[in-house]
Amino acid sequence: MEEYNVTNRNKVKRVAKRASYDKESVYRVLDDSFLCHVSFVVEGQPFIIPTIYGRKGNTLFLHGATTSRMIKTLQEGVDMSLGVTHLDGIVLARSAFHHSANYRSVVVFGKALLVEEEQKEEALYVISEQVLQGRWDEVRKPNARELKATTILAVDIEEASVKIRQGGPIDDKEDYELNIWAGVVPLAINALSPISDDFNQEMKVSDSVRNYLKNHFV
Amino acid sequence: MEEYNVTNRNKVKRVAKRASYDKESVYRVLDDSFLCHVSFVVEGQPFIIPTIYGRKGNTLFLHGATTSRMIKTLQEGVDMSLGVTHLDGIVLARSAFHHSANYRSVVVFGKALLVEEEQKEEALYVISEQVLQGRWDEVRKPNARELKATTILAVDIEEASVKIRQGGPIDDKEDYELNIWAGVVPLAINALSPISDDFNQEMKVSDSVRNYLKNHFV
Repeated sequence: MEEYNVTNRNKVKRVAKRASYDKESVYRVLDDSFLCHVSFVVEGQPFIIPTIYGRKGNTLFLHGATTSRMIKTLQEGVDMSLGVTHLDGIVLARSAFHHSANYRSVVVFGKALLVEEEQKEEALYVISEQVLQGRWDEVRKPNARELKATTILAVDIEEASVKIRQGGPIDDKEDYELNIWAGVVPLAINALSPISDDFNQEMKVSDSVRNYLKNHFV
Repeated sequence: MEEYNVTNRNKVKRVAKRASYDKESVYRVLDDSFLCHVSFVVEGQPFIIPTIYGRKGNTLFLHGATTSRMIKTLQEGVDMSLGVTHLDGIVLARSAFHHSANYRSVVVFGKALLVEEEQKEEALYVISEQVLQGRWDEVRKPNARELKATTILAVDIEEASVKIRQGGPIDDKEDYELNIWAGVVPLAINALSPISDDFNQEMKVSDSVRNYLKNHFV
């Protein structure tokens, strides 16, 4: 099992038993989402920006407009950090103190590199597949003007950690006597019924959407 | 309508028409969640950490163990940034380029202050209510030892912005001719059936949980 080096940056200090550094675990958590938050510094001031990503191997692709602060800053190759968190449940204990959340979260450290013009389409494909598998093949591909207007960054993951909490509450021994309901309220992101664009009300949803709903529709 | 000052820090540069700076809009987005990501700097290196928050007025409360890096850094009163994002849907256009996401996101700038011992319980109450309204009144309150083990930070919101995208895809005029389904797949966080702790299988869920499920259960 290949692992990231554990350094002072990515070492999980709190509840270390929930942490791991192996690449497969990191990738698994990353692959269950496409929304991340990126942290970077401009003149000493920390910024945070939500954005969409796609993973290929040990690389994360981000995209944005050339004029965005995130893109302008990151393309200089500065240190950045990126977080992805799944909130899987509210953990309700008998004491306020032992309340918790079930979650899977990844923190990544790395630096961004600008993706060259000729690799842009492949990178956008990776991002598109991360959001909705199969959609890319259904739609009009980017033309030269559109590719030019999009800046794409490739973040090679230097270090990462994953932290996972699951299961029920752990109360203090004496609190189990209390007459208080304890347990977990699981949370999940679900897709709702797709809403057709005004211009194609009569059209059936495409295969990519149908397949997505199979896995994400309640 | 009270607004945050717009400075070089919180000014939204990309798609500015989606942005606003009024406090009520910021609070509304914050109040729909309890999970944020915090961005801070240690020796030039940006970090990102997911954590839980509660809002009271213009103040956000964060909590953690005294030993955590986030707590140790933030309690020095350094600049920080905090992000909350709701992913509301995948926006599927006819061209790859016009794909988008529906979202509501807030970015906050401020500095943390340590909450004094005698205000800690009130701050924990605020966090608890943010996660699950009414739960606090059902459980054993923190004792002196538990309060001591918890560090609580109060972040007064200095500046913030909110950015919202909603609605369907906007395609290029000529692409409406294409025979491609376009629309939105709405996404929402839902609660699933609560899972009782092994020690109270026979007990009914408490009122706070029942009320939560009314609004969050599919």
